[in-house]
Amino acid sequence: MDLLKKRILLDGKILPGNVLKVDSFLNHQMDISLFSEMGKEFHRRFQDDNVTKILTIEASGIGIACIAAQSFGVPVVFAKKSKSINLPEDVYTSKVESFTHGRVYDIIVAKDYLSKDDRVLIIDDFLAMGHALLGLSKLVIDAGATLIGAGIAIEKGFQPGGALLRNQGIRVESLAIISSMDDRGVLFA
Amino acid sequence: MDLLKKRILLDGKILPGNVLKVDSFLNHQMDISLFSEMGKEFHRRFQDDNVTKILTIEASGIGIACIAAQSFGVPVVFAKKSKSINLPEDVYTSKVESFTHGRVYDIIVAKDYLSKDDRVLIIDDFLAMGHALLGLSKLVIDAGATLIGAGIAIEKGFQPGGALLRNQGIRVESLAIISSMDDRGVLFA
Repeated sequence: MDLLKKRILLDGKILPGNVLKVDSFLNHQMDISLFSEMGKEFHRRFQDDNVTKILTIEASGIGIACIAAQSFGVPVVFAKKSKSINLPEDVYTSKVESFTHGRVYDIIVAKDYLSKDDRVLIIDDFLAMGHALLGLSKLVIDAGATLIGAGIAIEKGFQPGGALLRNQGIRVESLAIISSMDDRGVLFA
Repeated sequence: MDLLKKRILLDGKILPGNVLKVDSFLNHQMDISLFSEMGKEFHRRFQDDNVTKILTIEASGIGIACIAAQSFGVPVVFAKKSKSINLPEDVYTSKVESFTHGRVYDIIVAKDYLSKDDRVLIIDDFLAMGHALLGLSKLVIDAGATLIGAGIAIEKGFQPGGALLRNQGIRVESLAIISSMDDRGVLFA
């Protein structure tokens, strides 16, 4: 998606440790007109899949998911990162390893909001190691729902998450796939 | 706003401790068509105020803020709840006391995304004790920006937050103000 790629080239900042900082338009300040175009593109790619629900994870996936949901005409559920040691019984849960924060956390969705009749599209801002997406897909599977696929804003193609998910048969549609980045800039696949 | 009040009466659940559970449509599963009507109503109330930016706080304010931002044609910034002891220097910060979680946490916004030229509308899902909103308004004031007011989905009118903010001269527009709730149900102001 050219609009997003151009914006990454214009406003993205590369920091040490393969960090791409896009918080001026994607995940701290959010450019809603860009999100609207991204939402339409996700809908173009998944419009024939009878999506009934969009699933994302707090916090930075929520804005993109909500705007995309307007194109699909479906509700959004966001998985919560749980800080509790004792999880309630009425939730689906999985463990996610965060490389950014160096720890493992639980994500939860109330059982009321994912059912076997749901056809679920996962939406998130980034795909790198793939652990958040694997955790989200486990919630969908545990609910007996149908996982349609994942719509991602920015995929770091040089990290293993995309291949990991696609090798499991999960359809992943990323609007911008970065093949490499260093102090000279960003290259797209 | 009748649509939201009716939805609270239909799907809200009252739990012990003055907890109104609305996570089937507002802050876990999110009804985007409802959010769209709420966004239009916020815009109707603040359309003459030349809002340049919407400020909210992770996680449950983000969806409402993003959908409302479409009506205003402005970007959204969400304040992050910081878990770090050492805060970076390039942020505005304030402390927020959470009664729900029984602790004090820092909220931060990068200085790049709030400026003295901004006319800021704060949007959040709930107003009860008012601490989150006071924390957000401090960020706006510290940035030298103009605080237009706050748009709230549900205000617990029987808790002191609304009066606290309005007594400081902050314009608060709540789409549903609950005057009382108990095991017999919810009453609106």
